Amino acid sequence: MDHLPDLPAEGRIRAVVSDLTPAVDGGRFAVKRSLGETLTVEASCFADGHDAVLALLCWRRDDESATTWHAVPMQPLGNDRWRATLRPDRCGRWWYSVSAWVDPFRSWRSQMARRTDDADIRLAALEGASLAEAAAVRAGDALADRNQLLRWAERLRNDGAHADAPALKALALDDTMAEVAGRHPDRRWPAVHAPMPLDVDRALARFGAWYELFPRSLGEGGRHGRFDDVIARLPAIAAMGFDVLYLPPVHPIGRVRRKGRNGVVVAGRDEPGSPWAIGAAEGGHTAVHPQLGTLDDFRRLVGEAERHGVDIALDIALQCAPDHPWVTDCPQWFRRRPDGSVQYAENPPKKYQDIYPFDFECEDWRGLWQALAGIFRHWIAQGVKVFRVDNPHTKSFAFWEWLIGTLRREHPDLVFLSEAFTRPQVMHRLAKLGFNQSYTYFTWRNTRAELTDYLEELTAGPGRDYFRPNLWPNTPDILPEYLQSGGRPAFVARLVLAATLGTSYGIYGPAFECMDARPREPGSEEYLDSEKYQLREGGHADGDGLAPLIATINRIRRDNPALQFPGGLRFLPVDNEQLIAYAKHDAASGNAVVVVVNLDPHHVHTGWLELDPAAYGGGDDEGSVQMHDLLGGERYQWAPGRNFVRLDPQRLLAHVFQVRRRVRSERDFDYYL
Amino acid sequence: MDHLPDLPAEGRIRAVVSDLTPAVDGGRFAVKRSLGETLTVEASCFADGHDAVLALLCWRRDDESATTWHAVPMQPLGNDRWRATLRPDRCGRWWYSVSAWVDPFRSWRSQMARRTDDADIRLAALEGASLAEAAAVRAGDALADRNQLLRWAERLRNDGAHADAPALKALALDDTMAEVAGRHPDRRWPAVHAPMPLDVDRALARFGAWYELFPRSLGEGGRHGRFDDVIARLPAIAAMGFDVLYLPPVHPIGRVRRKGRNGVVVAGRDEPGSPWAIGAAEGGHTAVHPQLGTLDDFRRLVGEAERHGVDIALDIALQCAPDHPWVTDCPQWFRRRPDGSVQYAENPPKKYQDIYPFDFECEDWRGLWQALAGIFRHWIAQGVKVFRVDNPHTKSFAFWEWLIGTLRREHPDLVFLSEAFTRPQVMHRLAKLGFNQSYTYFTWRNTRAELTDYLEELTAGPGRDYFRPNLWPNTPDILPEYLQSGGRPAFVARLVLAATLGTSYGIYGPAFECMDARPREPGSEEYLDSEKYQLREGGHADGDGLAPLIATINRIRRDNPALQFPGGLRFLPVDNEQLIAYAKHDAASGNAVVVVVNLDPHHVHTGWLELDPAAYGGGDDEGSVQMHDLLGGERYQWAPGRNFVRLDPQRLLAHVFQVRRRVRSERDFDYYL
Repeated sequence: MDHLPDLPAEGRIRAVVSDLTPAVDGGRFAVKRSLGETLTVEASCFADGHDAVLALLCWRRDDESATTWHAVPMQPLGNDRWRATLRPDRCGRWWYSVSAWVDPFRSWRSQMARRTDDADIRLAALEGASLAEAAAVRAGDALADRNQLLRWAERLRNDGAHADAPALKALALDDTMAEVAGRHPDRRWPAVHAPMPLDVDRALARFGAWYELFPRSLGEGGRHGRFDDVIARLPAIAAMGFDVLYLPPVHPIGRVRRKGRNGVVVAGRDEPGSPWAIGAAEGGHTAVHPQLGTLDDFRRLVGEAERHGVDIALDIALQCAPDHPWVTDCPQWFRRRPDGSVQYAENPPKKYQDIYPFDFECEDWRGLWQALAGIFRHWIAQGVKVFRVDNPHTKSFAFWEWLIGTLRREHPDLVFLSEAFTRPQVMHRLAKLGFNQSYTYFTWRNTRAELTDYLEELTAGPGRDYFRPNLWPNTPDILPEYLQSGGRPAFVARLVLAATLGTSYGIYGPAFECMDARPREPGSEEYLDSEKYQLREGGHADGDGLAPLIATINRIRRDNPALQFPGGLRFLPVDNEQLIAYAKHDAASGNAVVVVVNLDPHHVHTGWLELDPAAYGGGDDEGSVQMHDLLGGERYQWAPGRNFVRLDPQRLLAHVFQVRRRVRSERDFDYYL
Repeated sequence: MDHLPDLPAEGRIRAVVSDLTPAVDGGRFAVKRSLGETLTVEASCFADGHDAVLALLCWRRDDESATTWHAVPMQPLGNDRWRATLRPDRCGRWWYSVSAWVDPFRSWRSQMARRTDDADIRLAALEGASLAEAAAVRAGDALADRNQLLRWAERLRNDGAHADAPALKALALDDTMAEVAGRHPDRRWPAVHAPMPLDVDRALARFGAWYELFPRSLGEGGRHGRFDDVIARLPAIAAMGFDVLYLPPVHPIGRVRRKGRNGVVVAGRDEPGSPWAIGAAEGGHTAVHPQLGTLDDFRRLVGEAERHGVDIALDIALQCAPDHPWVTDCPQWFRRRPDGSVQYAENPPKKYQDIYPFDFECEDWRGLWQALAGIFRHWIAQGVKVFRVDNPHTKSFAFWEWLIGTLRREHPDLVFLSEAFTRPQVMHRLAKLGFNQSYTYFTWRNTRAELTDYLEELTAGPGRDYFRPNLWPNTPDILPEYLQSGGRPAFVARLVLAATLGTSYGIYGPAFECMDARPREPGSEEYLDSEKYQLREGGHADGDGLAPLIATINRIRRDNPALQFPGGLRFLPVDNEQLIAYAKHDAASGNAVVVVVNLDPHHVHTGWLELDPAAYGGGDDEGSVQMHDLLGGERYQWAPGRNFVRLDPQRLLAHVFQVRRRVRSERDFDYYL
């Protein structure tokens, strides 16, 4: 006979919440925002029939009680879509959700507004009285509301006898009472979306300029550089406007199978080896290289950097040199070859015999994870808050999710930068797992089409809510071909692109400043005499130095909010393929920047640029604007539509315009914002 | 101190499965397929590092053991995407999932293929021996495989001593042994996607022609029609090629506040009332109207229809006339007005006092749901398998999900058609909840741009995996303006469009066949003298009848697989806005149809149509094709590129071409497929 299997606990929930955005893999991973950003949530909220539906955006921090939700009403956008915005004000894990319900009071009011039949109006007024009384009960301690509602209910109930129907209808539609009742809605049967995770990071995770150098190269007269030399360099780095100083690994370097200059397999006597071959008799991942100084020296560096407003980023490379203490102390964390030797890194026919990877499939994976977490905890204890993680894509995904989640629960202001130039899905996965920033393919995107497609993918593609790009024109591993052949103009072009397309960008500084353009051999992207394997005292190559331009660029970044937020990027058409142009606009401040770069470092290029006022927040009736070139200082008057540009690599092959809109003031003067 | 909170149960699962498609709201709702269709599943499967990953598509029927999964290997598509296809062969709920894992054997083999160092090859052969032995253990009872693997392992282990490295490498890379080992992979640590629901329906849910009529109009000489009259009409309906005969509600009609001709509020004596005003002294939703016959007569009709290959679809309208027995027997299922009267349906200022809706928010919602399910169960017991549900969007979503899920678990071959012309999100929600088919906005999509946009949305939009359109040019409620003013050509155009754009389509038959085009009043979409309120013996209007053309169209539909599957639709450019052209192609059979319709019922139109061979499965080097007009009988020779069309409404304003491709046979004759 009839029975009722699989009956829901409550069948009277008539509203629905669906298609909530943003969401990363349906809530499996967190959406990312930083302090200073907002989270705009949209959802489809509707119910059967024609009753009124109301919706709330709800949120709470993970460290608040799971039953304490803050809420703000959502606004209808039409077609059953609703929207509300939240501005998170503290770092860490948050949760957000949307709740919607059929609202009997609003439904009643909407029907009342359309009623024309006197008898129906009188009956409906009685219904309204019941609804008002129910709202009064819900008002509870809000005594003023409660009393207003009760008085109103009484009139709705009693005026029917003597007031005429139109007067009764007007009383029922009283706006103030709708507002009072609206404060105490009937939420007996709400539809509630599953809570969605949100990770809120410090602003540095979104906006920062990174500078990479090898401390050991900072010594003078052939002396091995020390942390104290880095401290001495801090004022110059801060003056250039950098936010992060990133150091390659600072640990003892293995002596067994140490590599020599330019990566040759056998190092000569006294060659320093690669900082990424970690561990020797002096210690492993928690020790410092004796020639760099002591742990005390390192802590002093971190403190001094903080005084300059600079974060020290440490490179964590989870791999061992053959003489790393763990190779003998914890043999269970390494794979063995059939001859009993430890398995080195290899990608046949290539061998990396100086590097032993950890075996994430070992029996003692718990012990390994704990030890690796210990490395991070050790450096956090020394004051480090920013980690650049080397090759995370060759370590277990599950490990990263656990590690970053665990550490950020303890220290919500940590920032992890993923150094992975690998398959797109793997890079995206790492970002979903918790990395706050990611290296990108920017390094190899040179033409206008390549740059446009890639930046549109980064800023508008599915990764926009979790994949934060950090754009690097060069790294110690990569001297791109474009920089090898383009001379100073090529460096300027890549610098301007990285610093204005990316809210975060970085340079391998000493080599970039001096425009080192010599590859190890033709066709190679390795630097000749790379600092990875040797000291490079006093920089890399001759040249008149990019430091002043870099300082200008970083100042422009700090002065213009448009360059500090990932949204608001729009490419502008130019009728010359060698010229790339884009606007960045920050709606909150009204700030707008237009950048034009000549991508050809060898020739002057001219073109007509199509300026759409919408790109800088202007309306259809927008007049001309002043384009103030913050690089060159010139000011131009541009109008919506076609404008002429000419960029000479021998002079300066980029414009970085601040857009100054003409505003008619109350006293009828024109001025520029 | 260090601790390991939130550690996963197994940290060695290195593979990932993500972005599985298709999926409806991340698996919250079922993907729909029908018998005869395939389900092609794609997923991103990858792991950290460079080891080989393998992936399986797994599936099971809901009625199979939850641990019994069938599986087929997925094929890599590049960029870490994988694909496999499943052909479900039984109706009901299925589950599918994807499992991926890092495969040590494939990883070893891939490395071996790239090895050049003799010593490494010898060591790797020993590793291979271990892997082969492990595979032999997994082979278990597959004795042939087991023995082959063990023999091979022995050679890999021992040949190293005397064979040279290239010979050893060749032995290790033996293709047959790779195949044998591949049959017994090491799946200790698989990543498994959460199971995703799939609803498999009978083919009728995908492909069918529907015919709606009012049985009570089939009587002769003013007599009320009976089920026996419907039985007598069955041969004609089957001869026209219809698959479903859909009947408005067949229950006793309320006498209280019964509506009269053309919907006037007070019915005259002896007026029959609306079949949707359900319930009177004779019974409610489980009774039959005495003048239509008995329940036995009804069962006989269902059986006779089945003999003709026709399904009887019953209209279920979950609402009551004021004299429905439940109004007095189960008063708790209805809302009361403040004066104690039952709340009728209303949308102020409109009132529908002859209709009492159920209160889905009543205390006894469980009892109500059970009773409503009982209605469906009653008619299922009479042999009905197809239900057209009236206005489902005004009843609780949760109810529909429970009802359809419950009934289809008992009867997997049920088909529910959702009659909802409401907001898009609501219509989509109903489809997600389980309705197998849905009414659409096709009825009001007339221009080429409207039709193109809407059909592209239906076939390629997010609803493609759960929202099955059923296209209706008219219904008893809707006589669209286009049909009112366009004469016979308008009816022909809408018929051809519905029957070739939709795999399912339906007509309110007697009115359509006779091209009834008279509205109740100018500007109304209601029929004059609508059958909803009165008997219309012998049809609707004069005219030479569309029955022969309808029969031809339905035969074309049955002969051409391209018209039976929802995919493979492509619109073709024509340089005349009044001409719409599209190709439908079924890859499995190779069948292709090209339809051209003149949307202007008043004028001859000509144009050049751009024929892209890809639209009918042709390649770039495709020659000319024969276009065989299945409506008019003519054959044309068309070439890729521009082809001329001319359509005269006074003759026939549509082509339905079967595309016959020229194939060079082995004996060098040309013939047409």
